[in-house]
Amino acid sequence: MGKKIRIGMLGAGRIGKLHGENLAYAVPQAELVAIADPFLNDSIIEWAKGLGVENCYKEADPIFNDPTIDAVFICSSTDTHADYIIQAAKAKKHIFCEKPIHYDIARIQEALDAVEKAGVKLQVGFVRRFDHNHKAVRDAVASGKLGAPHVVKVTSRDPGPPPMEYVKVSGGIFMDMMIHDFDMVRYLSGSEVTEVSTYGGVLVDEKFAEYDDVDTAIVMLKFENGAIGVIDNSRKAGYGYDQRTEVHCAGGCVQVNNDLDNTAMISTADGVSVAKPTWFFLERYNNAFIAEVKDFISAIVNDTEVPVSGIDGLMPVLIAKAAKLSLKEGRSVKISEITA
Amino acid sequence: MGKKIRIGMLGAGRIGKLHGENLAYAVPQAELVAIADPFLNDSIIEWAKGLGVENCYKEADPIFNDPTIDAVFICSSTDTHADYIIQAAKAKKHIFCEKPIHYDIARIQEALDAVEKAGVKLQVGFVRRFDHNHKAVRDAVASGKLGAPHVVKVTSRDPGPPPMEYVKVSGGIFMDMMIHDFDMVRYLSGSEVTEVSTYGGVLVDEKFAEYDDVDTAIVMLKFENGAIGVIDNSRKAGYGYDQRTEVHCAGGCVQVNNDLDNTAMISTADGVSVAKPTWFFLERYNNAFIAEVKDFISAIVNDTEVPVSGIDGLMPVLIAKAAKLSLKEGRSVKISEITA
Amino acid sequence: MGKKIRIGMLGAGRIGKLHGENLAYAVPQAELVAIADPFLNDSIIEWAKGLGVENCYKEADPIFNDPTIDAVFICSSTDTHADYIIQAAKAKKHIFCEKPIHYDIARIQEALDAVEKAGVKLQVGFVRRFDHNHKAVRDAVASGKLGAPHVVKVTSRDPGPPPMEYVKVSGGIFMDMMIHDFDMVRYLSGSEVTEVSTYGGVLVDEKFAEYDDVDTAIVMLKFENGAIGVIDNSRKAGYGYDQRTEVHCAGGCVQVNNDLDNTAMISTADGVSVAKPTWFFLERYNNAFIAEVKDFISAIVNDTEVPVSGIDGLMPVLIAKAAKLSLKEGRSVKISEITA
Amino acid sequence: MGKKIRIGMLGAGRIGKLHGENLAYAVPQAELVAIADPFLNDSIIEWAKGLGVENCYKEADPIFNDPTIDAVFICSSTDTHADYIIQAAKAKKHIFCEKPIHYDIARIQEALDAVEKAGVKLQVGFVRRFDHNHKAVRDAVASGKLGAPHVVKVTSRDPGPPPMEYVKVSGGIFMDMMIHDFDMVRYLSGSEVTEVSTYGGVLVDEKFAEYDDVDTAIVMLKFENGAIGVIDNSRKAGYGYDQRTEVHCAGGCVQVNNDLDNTAMISTADGVSVAKPTWFFLERYNNAFIAEVKDFISAIVNDTEVPVSGIDGLMPVLIAKAAKLSLKEGRSVKISEITA
Repeated sequence: MGKKIRIGMLGAGRIGKLHGENLAYAVPQAELVAIADPFLNDSIIEWAKGLGVENCYKEADPIFNDPTIDAVFICSSTDTHADYIIQAAKAKKHIFCEKPIHYDIARIQEALDAVEKAGVKLQVGFVRRFDHNHKAVRDAVASGKLGAPHVVKVTSRDPGPPPMEYVKVSGGIFMDMMIHDFDMVRYLSGSEVTEVSTYGGVLVDEKFAEYDDVDTAIVMLKFENGAIGVIDNSRKAGYGYDQRTEVHCAGGCVQVNNDLDNTAMISTADGVSVAKPTWFFLERYNNAFIAEVKDFISAIVNDTEVPVSGIDGLMPVLIAKAAKLSLKEGRSVKISEITA
Repeated sequence: MGKKIRIGMLGAGRIGKLHGENLAYAVPQAELVAIADPFLNDSIIEWAKGLGVENCYKEADPIFNDPTIDAVFICSSTDTHADYIIQAAKAKKHIFCEKPIHYDIARIQEALDAVEKAGVKLQVGFVRRFDHNHKAVRDAVASGKLGAPHVVKVTSRDPGPPPMEYVKVSGGIFMDMMIHDFDMVRYLSGSEVTEVSTYGGVLVDEKFAEYDDVDTAIVMLKFENGAIGVIDNSRKAGYGYDQRTEVHCAGGCVQVNNDLDNTAMISTADGVSVAKPTWFFLERYNNAFIAEVKDFISAIVNDTEVPVSGIDGLMPVLIAKAAKLSLKEGRSVKISEITA
Repeated sequence: MGKKIRIGMLGAGRIGKLHGENLAYAVPQAELVAIADPFLNDSIIEWAKGLGVENCYKEADPIFNDPTIDAVFICSSTDTHADYIIQAAKAKKHIFCEKPIHYDIARIQEALDAVEKAGVKLQVGFVRRFDHNHKAVRDAVASGKLGAPHVVKVTSRDPGPPPMEYVKVSGGIFMDMMIHDFDMVRYLSGSEVTEVSTYGGVLVDEKFAEYDDVDTAIVMLKFENGAIGVIDNSRKAGYGYDQRTEVHCAGGCVQVNNDLDNTAMISTADGVSVAKPTWFFLERYNNAFIAEVKDFISAIVNDTEVPVSGIDGLMPVLIAKAAKLSLKEGRSVKISEITA
Repeated sequence: MGKKIRIGMLGAGRIGKLHGENLAYAVPQAELVAIADPFLNDSIIEWAKGLGVENCYKEADPIFNDPTIDAVFICSSTDTHADYIIQAAKAKKHIFCEKPIHYDIARIQEALDAVEKAGVKLQVGFVRRFDHNHKAVRDAVASGKLGAPHVVKVTSRDPGPPPMEYVKVSGGIFMDMMIHDFDMVRYLSGSEVTEVSTYGGVLVDEKFAEYDDVDTAIVMLKFENGAIGVIDNSRKAGYGYDQRTEVHCAGGCVQVNNDLDNTAMISTADGVSVAKPTWFFLERYNNAFIAEVKDFISAIVNDTEVPVSGIDGLMPVLIAKAAKLSLKEGRSVKISEITA
């Protein structure tokens, strides 16, 4: 094994720590060497030391300025993503960036331009593409054995709504939750979304209305290849993390169900019970998080294409904006209408 | 057991024969005593004799004029339904009518008025309400234990497209196929549909375009109770009859899958295979057809309400027309817009 | 369609009525024309009239003596089976006989000899062979695509124990309950059982011990073709009728699960529930009962072999006796040891 | 977090490496500090360095003599287990030992005596107890909600037979493969096995006969609490690792099925396919291996009982010997007969 890829981590919150531990324990070709977090404290420093990381900063600059660092993981708040991408690109570092890149289309484009100019790699964190289930759907469709896709379906329900502080700044259900599903339909169908139409409601918690948001939504989609599709989202499933995808094609259908906590079936006179779906994304996408990081490191080591590109980061933001506009104006919206 | 309900059958095609055999073999309280079919021939007469029916006519009048006949089954072509309902009502006979009642809203209303004026019972043949699976969804929702419905979902795919002669006169995918699903969402949600939005495509067979029809369609729905929903249809599943329903509620989700030919799982080095869904509606809804007829006869015997009313016959026609208009005009359509 | 096969029914208890109704309603080529039951009463006569049967007797002789009757169904108590078979054979009538033929091997042999001498057909009522699930296992094995059978497994559990009056005279768990499974392993494996070993316990109800019976039992089996197998039985499942079969072969495994009341899955914060297995054999084997009678009638009409022969009636009785002896003596017992 | 538990690893083959990596990456409270392997080579040393382990030996003594080492993992060949346990006990080190402890009962007893005398902890590596599925069965039974166990069932099939060099020295199917199932039935039933009866065959590969072994076996079991049970094993499933358990109790049944590679269902005109079971124990029991080591370390840190005791290591060896004797002598064998 050659030289390890040296990583600097920007942001050591929940998702940053998750990637950090995966890099340390599960990706032999990578080495986490520095972290930067504006809220750096003893707890973060101790966590870093546990992973063998000595360099802990409040500022990002020391990481950009360290010539021995090959790549950065941008796990900070969304408003910093584009800035950090541009700085990292200038510093000639490869970039793994959590989604979404930014809420502003022009800013995303600047970031992608900087990446292209610098010739570095940029992978966006759409982790579900690395899930064993959704990947099986994609592989079946991409194999061509089922023929052309006709209907693409995604269901996503969270176990329960997020804190209202998060809702306030998250960009709303289309930008923070359904954005994963917009990525998923592109991934599964192998085609671009051209138009969407949205129905939504505030059914889970009236507070969503205060933030001009909905908690339940259905979005129909048209695709460039002629297929049509539909996504349904709910902020509250109650029974766990409900993540199902399905593509119906000319020659048949492929669909996946949820992962369950176990396969037990308990049968009594009172009824038959089975296990609930895994509770949330950390359980469900545990292995997917490892796989996405491995693939990013592998793309650097072998100088191959990353599996989720900058364009893959841009498109779901456009679709999210179109879906929101459709809900607001009560009409079908073309993706080409979205410019900012 | 008291006096049997005496039945006259109008139309002895596939569906008429099915109901006739169920009446003869599976509904002890009913007695099929006469049939009328404009295409009456030896084969039909022999079939009728096998069921112990001696009175076979080309015209419907002898049935309407027979005072010993308590009820009629209208299984003739759709254009005759409203006329027969009106005649039967005048003759004070209870009526079981296959769906749809008519393609014209005013004509449906005339028929319903005639029924109301005569005080006879009218049940419309939405057989899926009597299916063990969909009924389990409805019962779970109606029990109130899951709380208010949030998202109502129906998937319907036929094994393969019907003959083009049928497509030509069927009224199109919304009127002849999705009409069942429009009934289903009303049944499952316990609420009226207020608005729909449609995306559709000609993906299975280009000939559908010649008849101004689509073969693949998705319709989003809004309900009076605040819920939203979606139906997806395809004329071609290939693998069997795909009929799944799901209602996600405030307190959880209920969903049903397809009935399979058997429960066998065959595992080899090449893969693991399970049985296909039952092939078509005759297999899938075999017991449901018996149950719907039993319930109709029971409503007559006990003078109770029929389980599928005239309004239940009207509403899906309105929704079908709205869905078709939505597709044509590329906009969301309110049910209240449909007047003819 | 040619002349109908005219049937006389011997015994109009639960199983006789079931076959009678199936003959009347579901088998167009058959005609039930007479019944005989020593406990004939008004209720039975009314039931018979409802099926169009005018000839009701207390004695069996009028049926044997009626030259227009082609076949008899022996649904009377087990102790009469062999006698009736012999009389029916002498009267040159084809015979459908419920299992078991008799508890005494010599008496079974006499009955089979009479049948052979008379050249009539005898089908024994092992109805599970006609079940869609078990048949799928058999077909997969018999196709040869899975290679030679290695391990044959059957699980059978009744929803609850039968009345103790029945237990007293039934011949015990091996003769009245597991006998179906002994037939099943022969059917599935395509091979004869050569040896068995039994473990059993009185765990459900201590009263079974009073009748020298057990209520829970496991029997291992050796087959002529080298395969080995195991059956487990319990008199009480509580949750429904549990009937699963499995054959593991050189090239893979085929297994079937229970039929459920419906496919509904209800997911809430409290858990996920699915439907229970169908409650008892009348629900589970409803279609199988029709199929077995159809096949019997078809074998007469076309003069082909019946699907369950006299030998198929004899062998499970031998195995049941060996299993009981194994339990009693605490040792493995060869089928060849059983002579009476 | 207090002081880490310092571990010495004896044996760095496949299973030793697996535990070593889990200790290094997944158990924060443990620290792997030394390894000893008689076949120590550069590859092992490099692997150890990758985990931060500097001390690599050919002999075990340096580990036993190192006073800073708290516990050892015995992952060497089976014939060395008892010796190492005794030495480790004398050196006052806690012990995790792979199964089986030894093939000789007296030698196992010596080892257990040494452990007891030293007052150290000994956990035996029956990893399946830590699997999410089997644990769900155990928990359901142990909760008491299902009532007393009546029938305990285990199916185990390997994807394919092991190399014949392994078969030669493994102790045979009962000692190297079914031993896990003997542990499992004790774990699931909460009761001791008292008697077994075995049927077996050489059906997969004739070479097994050369080593006086079988490749397919069924063992019936009696338990102290009155329950009965059955295990079936095959050396070749072909389709993956087939590991199913089931306990039928007075009040109902709990059963688990296999983990599958994913939840995809692909439906076409040719059939419906689902994913295969995970291929082998490394995939299936990946998380279980981590959990068993965590529990061992936790028992040391908190000075609580280990979850799998020395007696749990002894009993399956006794049952394996009884099962083998039963097959050889063609009779039911009591566990109390086994003395050596």
